[in-house]
Amino acid sequence: MKRFDFPHTHIIDSHQFSREDLNTILAATEHVVRLKEQNRLFGVLEGRLMASLFFESSTRTRLSFEAAMHRLGGRIITTVGFQFSSISKGETLYDTMKMIEAYADIAVIRHPVEGSSRIAAGAVNIPIINAGDGAGQHPTQALLDLYTIVRERGLPDKKRIAFIGDLKFGRTIHSLVKLLTHYETEFVFISPVDLALPESYRKELRSLGIHFEETEDLKAMWDCDVAYITRIQEERFADRADYERLKDSYVVNRAFVQASRHPTLLLHPLPRVNELSTDVDDMPNAAYFRQAAYGVDVRMALLCLCLQAELPDL
Amino acid sequence: MKRFDFPHTHIIDSHQFSREDLNTILAATEHVVRLKEQNRLFGVLEGRLMASLFFESSTRTRLSFEAAMHRLGGRIITTVGFQFSSISKGETLYDTMKMIEAYADIAVIRHPVEGSSRIAAGAVNIPIINAGDGAGQHPTQALLDLYTIVRERGLPDKKRIAFIGDLKFGRTIHSLVKLLTHYETEFVFISPVDLALPESYRKELRSLGIHFEETEDLKAMWDCDVAYITRIQEERFADRADYERLKDSYVVNRAFVQASRHPTLLLHPLPRVNELSTDVDDMPNAAYFRQAAYGVDVRMALLCLCLQAELPDL
Amino acid sequence: MKRFDFPHTHIIDSHQFSREDLNTILAATEHVVRLKEQNRLFGVLEGRLMASLFFESSTRTRLSFEAAMHRLGGRIITTVGFQFSSISKGETLYDTMKMIEAYADIAVIRHPVEGSSRIAAGAVNIPIINAGDGAGQHPTQALLDLYTIVRERGLPDKKRIAFIGDLKFGRTIHSLVKLLTHYETEFVFISPVDLALPESYRKELRSLGIHFEETEDLKAMWDCDVAYITRIQEERFADRADYERLKDSYVVNRAFVQASRHPTLLLHPLPRVNELSTDVDDMPNAAYFRQAAYGVDVRMALLCLCLQAELPDL
Repeated sequence: MKRFDFPHTHIIDSHQFSREDLNTILAATEHVVRLKEQNRLFGVLEGRLMASLFFESSTRTRLSFEAAMHRLGGRIITTVGFQFSSISKGETLYDTMKMIEAYADIAVIRHPVEGSSRIAAGAVNIPIINAGDGAGQHPTQALLDLYTIVRERGLPDKKRIAFIGDLKFGRTIHSLVKLLTHYETEFVFISPVDLALPESYRKELRSLGIHFEETEDLKAMWDCDVAYITRIQEERFADRADYERLKDSYVVNRAFVQASRHPTLLLHPLPRVNELSTDVDDMPNAAYFRQAAYGVDVRMALLCLCLQAELPDL
Repeated sequence: MKRFDFPHTHIIDSHQFSREDLNTILAATEHVVRLKEQNRLFGVLEGRLMASLFFESSTRTRLSFEAAMHRLGGRIITTVGFQFSSISKGETLYDTMKMIEAYADIAVIRHPVEGSSRIAAGAVNIPIINAGDGAGQHPTQALLDLYTIVRERGLPDKKRIAFIGDLKFGRTIHSLVKLLTHYETEFVFISPVDLALPESYRKELRSLGIHFEETEDLKAMWDCDVAYITRIQEERFADRADYERLKDSYVVNRAFVQASRHPTLLLHPLPRVNELSTDVDDMPNAAYFRQAAYGVDVRMALLCLCLQAELPDL
Repeated sequence: MKRFDFPHTHIIDSHQFSREDLNTILAATEHVVRLKEQNRLFGVLEGRLMASLFFESSTRTRLSFEAAMHRLGGRIITTVGFQFSSISKGETLYDTMKMIEAYADIAVIRHPVEGSSRIAAGAVNIPIINAGDGAGQHPTQALLDLYTIVRERGLPDKKRIAFIGDLKFGRTIHSLVKLLTHYETEFVFISPVDLALPESYRKELRSLGIHFEETEDLKAMWDCDVAYITRIQEERFADRADYERLKDSYVVNRAFVQASRHPTLLLHPLPRVNELSTDVDDMPNAAYFRQAAYGVDVRMALLCLCLQAELPDL
C-alpha cells in the first residue's frame, strides 16, 4: 500500500501549493487513474463519508466531486442551496461546520462569499475542499486544468500557453496562472484591453521574472501549445457597444483552428456559449470534454490525499 | 454467470422493441426478481454509477430508478430541476450530456421537452434511459405495466384489456397500447368521446389487423381480464360542464367492482385522485400498489440489460 | 451476533417508550458506538434502503439520519420539499407512503403537519421514524438528548436538570421532559413567565409525583447537573417590548458559566443564536457539538432496532 506524502489538510487556495505539492498531486492522480483502469479503485475510501455542501448551485462541480467519491467507494451526504433552516434562523457558518464535522469525514464547500472555505477550515478538524467561494478561489478547477495540460502535452515547462477571453474577472484563469508560475511557462494573454489581466497579476509575474505577452489578436494562439479559452460575458462590459464590437472577434471555430499548422491543445472550463464552436468538437486537439473527465480523476486524488488514504500498489 | 442478449443500448421509445426484446426484458426481470428473493442482487452493479437527471420533477419515477440502482449495489449522482447553472448560462443539452458522460456509466433522463432523450442518446457513448420526455414517451412505465400484466395474469395473448379514462392525452396508455400490439390482445377502450384514443392509434391498430372496441360505458370493464384506469383531468376539457357531467361516471369503487363476477385485474399508473376509490385497495385484484413495486424490478432489469451486466445464475 | 429485543416497529412519539425501551435504546447505542470505534459498523445494514422523506426542510436532521444510514453500510433515496408532483396533483400521504413501501425498507419522515408520521405508519408495513411533524413530536431528538446526558453524566436519576428558554412552545423540551419522567429526575424550569411550561405538562408531572421548580432566574442553573438551553424566539411574544426586556437576561456566556462552581453540563439542540455565546464553546462542559455527534450514534441504533438488524458481538 502507498500513502502519498502531502503536507496539506485542506484545499483552499491555489496559492497554497509548492511545485513539490503539484508533483505529488499529479503523481497521485496518475496512480488513481491506473487503479481505475484496473478496476481496483472501489474500496479505497469505503466507509468514509463526504459532505457535499453547495450553498450555491454548481451542478457540474458537485457531480464531479460526488462521482469521484463514489468511484472510490465512499459515501456522500449532500445539500444544495441555503436549505439549512438553521442558517435561515441565523446560524453562522462556524456552527454549521461544527455540525458537519460531527457527521462527515471530509467536506466539499461551494459558497457565494469569498473566504468562506477558509472560515470553514478554521472551524473543524476534518479536511475542507474549496469548490469555489465567490470571486475568490476554485483551486480544484486549476488543478484539473494543470493535470489536463500535463496529461495531453507533458509538463508546462517551455510550453507556450495562451489565455483567451475575460482575463480580468476570470477566477479560473487567475488560479491556473498562479499554478503555472511554478513552471517555466511562456504566457500569452489574449483579451480585449478592457478585460486584460489585472495589474496585480502582471506585477507578480514580473516580480517572478516570468516573461509574458499581451495582445488583443486571437491569432496569437496559433503558435501556442495550449489555448485556454473562456467566455466573454456581456455583463462585464461597461459599454454594450464594446461588447457587440468585440464578441465576434473572440470565436474559436473549426476554420480558425485549421488555419493554424500548430496542433494547439484547446481547453475550456465549460460551459461554453459562442466563443467555442461545436464544429471544433471532433478535432483531436479539442480536449475540453476530456478535461471534464480528468476533473473526476484529479478530485479522486485530492480526496485520497486529504484523507491520507492508503492506495493499493500498482 | 448469465448475460442476456439485448440489442439496444438506450431505452428511448416503446416503438423500439420487438416481441423478442419484450421477451428478453420479461425474462431478465424474472431473473432479477429471483436473485432478489435470494438476497443475491447486491453486487451486480457494484462500482457502476448512474446519473439521475430530472430536469423536471418526477419524484415517483426518480425514486423508483434510484431504488433499482441501489438494490443492485450501484451508485447514484442526482440532480433535480434546471439547477444546472451551466444550462441557465445557455449550455445546450448536448454539452450537458458530454459532461455527464465524463462522470457516469449510465444516465436516466426526465425532461419537459419531447425528443430530449433521443438528443441525449445521440450525444454520448453511455446508455440513456428515457424517464419521460414531455408529451413524448415514458417507455419504462409501459414496460412495468406489461410486466405487471404478465406477472399477475400471464402473457397478454387472448386477454381482454380495458383502457379507461383519458385515452386522448394519456402518454402512459399510448405507450402500453403500442407494446400490447406485439401480443394477441383484445383491446377495449372506455372513455368520454372527447377523450377517445387518437385516430392515429386507431389507424395503426386497424393496419395491424387488431380488433378493438370503443365505448363510453364503464361497465364494459366487467368482462375484461385487466382494467387499466387513468385520471380524467379537468384541464383537458374544452367545456367545464362536460367535465362535471362525466367525471362521476368514471369512478371505480368497491361496489362497482363487486357488481362484476369477473376477477378483473385493476391497474393504475398512479397518482390517483377520485377515479379509483380507496375502498378498493384491499381487494385482491387491486394490483396498483404491487405495480409500483414491480416498477423497481423492471428498472433493475433494464439497468442490467443496458449496462450488459453479468447476472449470477439462479 | 446480537439482536436487541425491541417491541416497537415505528418511532413516532416519545410517549411510546417505557423505561425498559429506553434502556434498550441506550444499550444499543453503546453497542453501535463500540462497533464504530472498531471499524466494524460497515455492513450491518448493507443492502437495506432508507427513504429520507423531508416534506419540510430540516437539513440538520436529514444529514444526521443519512450519515447514520451510510455509516451502517445502508443506502438512501431522498426527497426534500413537496417536490412530489403526485402530491401537487392531489395524492394523499397514504398513497405516497404505499409507493415508498414499494421502494424502501424503512422511511424517515419530516412533515409540517402534526400526526403525519402516525398516518404514514398506519399505511405501510415498513418501519417509520418520525423526524418531526409540525408542532407535534420529534422523538429522536429527545432520545439523543437523553443519550447525551447519560453518556456525559450517567443516568438522570437524582440529577438536577434545568430547562432554559422557551418552555411553552419548545417541542424538543416537551419530548425530553417526557422521557426524563421515567427517571428520578429533579426538574428546574427557567423561563419568562409568558413562556413557562404548559399547564398540561405541569399537571402530568404532579400526577406522577415528580417534584419540579419554576423560576425566571437564569442563575438557578448554577447548581444543576445539566442545563438544557433553548432559544427565545421573538415571534413567540405578544408584546415586542417584553421580548426586548427579556432577551438579554437569557444569555449564557463564559463569564456567567464561570461564576458557578458547579460543572453544569451545557446542552443545546442547535441552532443557537444569542442565547448561548461562542465564548463558551471551548469549555469542557460545553457538550452541544458532541450532542450533535451523538445524534448520529443514536440514530444508527434506532435504524438497527427498527429493522431488527443483527449486530456483531463486541
